[in-house]
Amino acid sequence: MILSPSPLPPGWQPISGGLTAPEGFLAAGITAGLKPSGNPDLSLLLAPAGAVCAGSFTLNRVRAACVDLCAERLQSSGGRARAVLTNSGQANACTGERGLADSLKATAELAGRLALAAEEVLICSTGVIGVPIPIDTLIQGLDPLVAALSEAGGEAAARAILTTDLVDKQIALEANLGGRRVRIGGMAKGSGMIHPDMATMLGYLSCDAGVPADVWQARVKRAVDRSFNAITVDGDTSTNDSFLAFAAGEDLSPEHHDALESGLTAVSQHLARAIARDGEGATCLLEVRVSGAAGAGEARRIARTICGSSLVKCAVHGRDPNWGRIVAAAGRAGVPLDPEAVALWLGEHQLMQAGQPLAFDRPAASRYMKDRAAAAYLLDDTVLIRLKVGEGPGEGVAWGCDLSDQYVRINADYTT
Amino acid sequence: MILSPSPLPPGWQPISGGLTAPEGFLAAGITAGLKPSGNPDLSLLLAPAGAVCAGSFTLNRVRAACVDLCAERLQSSGGRARAVLTNSGQANACTGERGLADSLKATAELAGRLALAAEEVLICSTGVIGVPIPIDTLIQGLDPLVAALSEAGGEAAARAILTTDLVDKQIALEANLGGRRVRIGGMAKGSGMIHPDMATMLGYLSCDAGVPADVWQARVKRAVDRSFNAITVDGDTSTNDSFLAFAAGEDLSPEHHDALESGLTAVSQHLARAIARDGEGATCLLEVRVSGAAGAGEARRIARTICGSSLVKCAVHGRDPNWGRIVAAAGRAGVPLDPEAVALWLGEHQLMQAGQPLAFDRPAASRYMKDRAAAAYLLDDTVLIRLKVGEGPGEGVAWGCDLSDQYVRINADYTT
Repeated sequence: MILSPSPLPPGWQPISGGLTAPEGFLAAGITAGLKPSGNPDLSLLLAPAGAVCAGSFTLNRVRAACVDLCAERLQSSGGRARAVLTNSGQANACTGERGLADSLKATAELAGRLALAAEEVLICSTGVIGVPIPIDTLIQGLDPLVAALSEAGGEAAARAILTTDLVDKQIALEANLGGRRVRIGGMAKGSGMIHPDMATMLGYLSCDAGVPADVWQARVKRAVDRSFNAITVDGDTSTNDSFLAFAAGEDLSPEHHDALESGLTAVSQHLARAIARDGEGATCLLEVRVSGAAGAGEARRIARTICGSSLVKCAVHGRDPNWGRIVAAAGRAGVPLDPEAVALWLGEHQLMQAGQPLAFDRPAASRYMKDRAAAAYLLDDTVLIRLKVGEGPGEGVAWGCDLSDQYVRINADYTT
Repeated sequence: MILSPSPLPPGWQPISGGLTAPEGFLAAGITAGLKPSGNPDLSLLLAPAGAVCAGSFTLNRVRAACVDLCAERLQSSGGRARAVLTNSGQANACTGERGLADSLKATAELAGRLALAAEEVLICSTGVIGVPIPIDTLIQGLDPLVAALSEAGGEAAARAILTTDLVDKQIALEANLGGRRVRIGGMAKGSGMIHPDMATMLGYLSCDAGVPADVWQARVKRAVDRSFNAITVDGDTSTNDSFLAFAAGEDLSPEHHDALESGLTAVSQHLARAIARDGEGATCLLEVRVSGAAGAGEARRIARTICGSSLVKCAVHGRDPNWGRIVAAAGRAGVPLDPEAVALWLGEHQLMQAGQPLAFDRPAASRYMKDRAAAAYLLDDTVLIRLKVGEGPGEGVAWGCDLSDQYVRINADYTT
């Protein structure tokens, strides 16, 4: 997916290769026959020996058996895992005992083929809720899947995890940290049922630096809060959302952990923005930046509420500079807000000052949004809303997309 | 608006007349020229001398000057008011000092014509945010408005408060309480920016029984919680939402206050359901009933979350019995939930038991939803979802509507 370049942290450069750009990571993606469409549907990531793994999972009380399995295995191993299998087409949520049995069987069968313990293998599922995995078909796919593992497999893996996504989402960055190359790769899928309550999607990250498991978990958690937990497509939190981040390689000196975290954050933000941009029916990426709040949490909450407002999203879709809806959404974010202090910009067009509307060039502001949409997937198709709510130090950002008639059609007709 | 009959509380019967059905209440609605469309846009309700008034207002931190004015006047008078003026077309929110000055001027001018103190007159505004009222046009409309006041003015008043509503919303009920007739009337407008956080719309209620102000306020608050605070159209809370309930008449014996409250609740629920049914682009009313929760609050929260889910609303629009989305929405309601205990019905079709999908007649379940929609405005067009989440005593209900491509078109093109 070509996306407008986010500003990269100092020292980090984009490279190709996605999830398999970091040294020692292998991946594969194949068509096992799980999807009626015949599209790739089975994906595998294999991390080097000694890998640590940090996971974040949906906070939905209804979650798929595979999510329980991942969380329990990472908990009991203290953050050790080697491989993750992903099937797309069936979410395997609300499938009861059979769902858990299928997840256990799939990971056990795969572990045998990789000469790993079953506990070192994780599994993610995505697709229609309530539909079990055609488990025999999946098992039959494991031999060709393992045979396809390669150092160039990142792209195939990224395609095989998609459902209604239009494009694959991957990135890799590289930096020189203390005289050695460190690489971070990532892939994700999203599309619908996307709302920040832990990464509401599937996301995977690989890194070829050795980091203690507890440090890795803390650094990954912060990166997730600033990326996957700052996006929304439709306010619906999925049953299957999982983010898994692997690190394996020569130990990285602690003095470089901050630099590593900035790379982790950049990779995660790229993937999160790519998910929002590819939200079902979306025609642009919506970025909301809030400043002047009491704290970062307050700023993020206001930004998310604006990003998630159906009325704001419809206005952006209609290229309508309807600032009233933006301010109304800010007012219901559950955060103290002085309406008289609000200033608002759409791109470079200032629409409000001190809580009151300014005269502005409405056709030009509308054209700003039209031009963004016309740039879709090519250049910078981000519609930027900036809101200043006071003089506080708190800043925050959220990403989303517009709400189109196409979103409704996709979701009115999904299973029937 | 013809709406499927809700079950009425014992002893209460529907009557005609809307807001002016109760004795002594006068109302009027005229075209003052505030709306470019030429539709009625100025409405007035006049309560008898001695009236008490209970108000509920938006919790949005950004609220219109008229809302501040209503809340302050009711606060300082201890719940005494005689009249409420409503202009439709301009929300008069985010209009700064001019907005407040216009609200003060409008109520002062009207008070003079009604021989009331300005403090006894309230004002509500609805329409586009940021647009001030053409105040001279409004003032010119006050003489004909007062001249039009009549005991049969309820219907004209109900039409003059509408914006993008397709139909007017009114009701009146009557009961014999302790040997005397007691009547309750009501009217409302809704359409977009509708989400339970206090009555997110304009609503008005009249009652010809005398009730102490504090009792009236407490009873009205409970009725509002069970009606206007249980609806959602799009999750967006407006800047102008107000509900004003007047009572004036011969004192009602306290032994009949419970019966009066059941009437208040029935009138409020009818209006709330009518607002949800007339949500922008809606083709049916969605009713979600949750039982078996720990308490009523938990049940209501789950019901509201399901009603507000974009994915559930799209599935209902597509007449798609997509139970997975319903259960996923329940799981993110922020309430403890045992997925293994969930049972789910769509109309009379049971879709889940003990957290797992049942085999069900999918075409028949889809047909159930199609039949509801075909009945629109004529018979019973309610799509009923029932969810049992355990064995607890908590029950709750919420109302909403489907999400259609028409909603997006209405809101993509609203101001441009």
